Amino acid sequence: MYSKRIESFLKRKKLKIGDMVTVTKEGRKISGLLMPQTVSGNPDILVIKLVDNGYNIGVKMEAGAAVEKGKGTEPVLVEEEAEFELGKTKTSGKLKFSAGKPKISLISTGGTISSRVDYRTGGVYAVKDPGEFLYNIPELAKAVNIRKLVTPFTKMSEDMEPQDWKQIARAVARELNSGDRGVIVTHGTDFLHYTAAALSFFLRGLTKPVVLVGAQRSSDRGSSDAGMNLLCAAHTAVSDIAEVGVCMHGRIDDDYCLFTRGTHVRKMDTQRRDAFRPINEYPLAKVWPDGKIMVKNRKHKKRDDNGKVKPDLKFEPKVAMLKTYPGSDPDVINYYISRGFRGFVIEGSGLGHVPVQAKKNWTSIIKKHTKDGVPFVITPQTIYGRINTSVYTNLRILYKETGAIPGGDMLSEVALVKLGWALGHTKDPEKVREIMLTNYAEEITSRTLVGTFLY
Amino acid sequence: MYSKRIESFLKRKKLKIGDMVTVTKEGRKISGLLMPQTVSGNPDILVIKLVDNGYNIGVKMEAGAAVEKGKGTEPVLVEEEAEFELGKTKTSGKLKFSAGKPKISLISTGGTISSRVDYRTGGVYAVKDPGEFLYNIPELAKAVNIRKLVTPFTKMSEDMEPQDWKQIARAVARELNSGDRGVIVTHGTDFLHYTAAALSFFLRGLTKPVVLVGAQRSSDRGSSDAGMNLLCAAHTAVSDIAEVGVCMHGRIDDDYCLFTRGTHVRKMDTQRRDAFRPINEYPLAKVWPDGKIMVKNRKHKKRDDNGKVKPDLKFEPKVAMLKTYPGSDPDVINYYISRGFRGFVIEGSGLGHVPVQAKKNWTSIIKKHTKDGVPFVITPQTIYGRINTSVYTNLRILYKETGAIPGGDMLSEVALVKLGWALGHTKDPEKVREIMLTNYAEEITSRTLVGTFLY
Repeated sequence: MYSKRIESFLKRKKLKIGDMVTVTKEGRKISGLLMPQTVSGNPDILVIKLVDNGYNIGVKMEAGAAVEKGKGTEPVLVEEEAEFELGKTKTSGKLKFSAGKPKISLISTGGTISSRVDYRTGGVYAVKDPGEFLYNIPELAKAVNIRKLVTPFTKMSEDMEPQDWKQIARAVARELNSGDRGVIVTHGTDFLHYTAAALSFFLRGLTKPVVLVGAQRSSDRGSSDAGMNLLCAAHTAVSDIAEVGVCMHGRIDDDYCLFTRGTHVRKMDTQRRDAFRPINEYPLAKVWPDGKIMVKNRKHKKRDDNGKVKPDLKFEPKVAMLKTYPGSDPDVINYYISRGFRGFVIEGSGLGHVPVQAKKNWTSIIKKHTKDGVPFVITPQTIYGRINTSVYTNLRILYKETGAIPGGDMLSEVALVKLGWALGHTKDPEKVREIMLTNYAEEITSRTLVGTFLY
Repeated sequence: MYSKRIESFLKRKKLKIGDMVTVTKEGRKISGLLMPQTVSGNPDILVIKLVDNGYNIGVKMEAGAAVEKGKGTEPVLVEEEAEFELGKTKTSGKLKFSAGKPKISLISTGGTISSRVDYRTGGVYAVKDPGEFLYNIPELAKAVNIRKLVTPFTKMSEDMEPQDWKQIARAVARELNSGDRGVIVTHGTDFLHYTAAALSFFLRGLTKPVVLVGAQRSSDRGSSDAGMNLLCAAHTAVSDIAEVGVCMHGRIDDDYCLFTRGTHVRKMDTQRRDAFRPINEYPLAKVWPDGKIMVKNRKHKKRDDNGKVKPDLKFEPKVAMLKTYPGSDPDVINYYISRGFRGFVIEGSGLGHVPVQAKKNWTSIIKKHTKDGVPFVITPQTIYGRINTSVYTNLRILYKETGAIPGGDMLSEVALVKLGWALGHTKDPEKVREIMLTNYAEEITSRTLVGTFLY
């Protein structure tokens, strides 16, 4: 809330939140959207969101400062009925959108994108009210009409589990099949790429965009990436790219976002805004906050508004991911087996090696359990590149003798999700193998394009 | 060996292996170094190494083909006594080098760089004779004088174990302290970066270059990167950069190599020649095969030829590396503890999270064992970036309550090696913590430069 002084002053000027304004102070002119005051900020500081880069800046309204209605194009806003669903509680209300914009649903699951800074401690905490973060991004109303806001749960993504993926997939399928042009899923970033992979396999027959989006800095920070990411996500959600993907900053400056396929995306940095990178593939598209979309991968699936998506949620969560390294202990596989685990992703080295002549021989243990019908999928711990079993003699032996499944260029994270999904459908080792070697969501590329390395 | 026909023809022309030659065939002229014939190749095909890019090409010597002494600058070669050490067997012999070149030792440990293609199966197998791969790279004789060739063992790097790092470190220290200008270590690529990290911690008081080098394609292949990598490694070994590092292709074309610090390098692709990338830091230098060196990190340690290196090899191999992911099971820590493991590197998500509110709470298990004096180091599974405990409320709780050690921007691989090294020196948890938070080999940077992401 602004101070009474500012509130009455805005009223006098007939200015309201979301209006384009121009502030003049000490000879400088600043144009942007008038924003609500953040909960714990100084109520005498006017918050303006710059249109060019999405930054929030604060202007102290003291003697010599003036604010006028700005010159930006003002869309015609119409009030529409929107549904809200928080857990099992359903309500509805009015939200304002530009007239005639396509309808989407927004599924909010928590994470930094729906977090705020705690100004006492400086830490970030999760906001429980899903509407609160929308409040900070009035531009969204100019791109889409949010028909429904669903909050199945809120958690930071590092706490997400396979059960949560199912809830999200159910909500996405239900809303898409209710006629939405697309769906946005807001999500914490830590394990965002696991959810992206899970939705890629779970949502069979998808014909509309499912856009996962997060933020590396919380929505109420000046430098937050939440606004631009969400705006680009909205444009993507109504585009013709009918895929599950992640839409986040493409570079550290607020230039464009990348929309990257859910099976080829990975969080590659702890804090950079452009941390989500395509792996072994180009992104599907570059998306600008003004709505421009440059398709980078022309082979993407195309929209069909008449299509119905079918969630296929059978999943075996007892799958484990292990990594080989010098001195690594393959006996841990026996431990997992004794605890009821039914499949493994092994992050092998180089083209798909595991230690064979080291004191601890991984091959013999893999071989033993493969014979008992336990699948082992080998993925590259290098992240980029692909398993190639034909180059080295001991690699041929490994795959021939042990029956391990070469993961191609699948990311370890993607292979783990896919293996759980495969084991959810069949106990037959041959069928699991066949599923792992078959493309279900473009997770295996036929060849790696040179320019995709470190994209 | 070449065919008798070619041998006698070369004799007549007074041409020998390593000479600059120009071959004329069908109107085309090809200039390069005359190479030995590969064991299983066609003995009627002359092998020429192109000077510009290091490729080997084959020219069938049939009617209309002529070969003459080439125009390249021929260095004055002198025969010098060289020592050979293969395991415990010591011999010596004569090798030819350009006059007055600085002396180095070469420690050969196996891997693709000392492998050959098996022409029957197309696979790659390890060569047991350490001299054989030198034979393929006559350019080396123009850059340095190899005083000693040590082969402590030969294995593919995926089979290497901490015990092997000690053997390599001992050999490096012995040769450096015998007066070498620097040492080259040839090594398989899969676990090369682990050995690089180990040598960085083991070689205390290092004042000369220790250059690790491998190849993504075997030395006898036309497209091998072995020649250029080894040549760049030789130039680096006599440079003023007194650090342990990896010298490999900087780009896929044969332009330059990167020399990257041993604690900030990772194999990032399964097969690309430029797979070894600097992480969270710029490379120490770009090195060209003609000997040009462009220093990228001016803070590198400088050469002091009077310095003596002291190997410090105390190492506890019972350390394990685990990763958190959705559904990951922290109970496996109990398994490792029951098997005598004494420390853990946990690849956390984002800024250093582990699942807390998931069904399986990692925090409580970490806390329990930390109380018993077991160290847990948290590293970023994103690879790039750093653990930052001050941003999120539950991160503060994790590190405050559990006593977990934030790994900064240390690579997981580096943290694992360092933790084993720390535990080799002390059982006191507070001292282990102190060691892990202290820079011993520039493994923790104070800040991340923007341009180092995906370098």
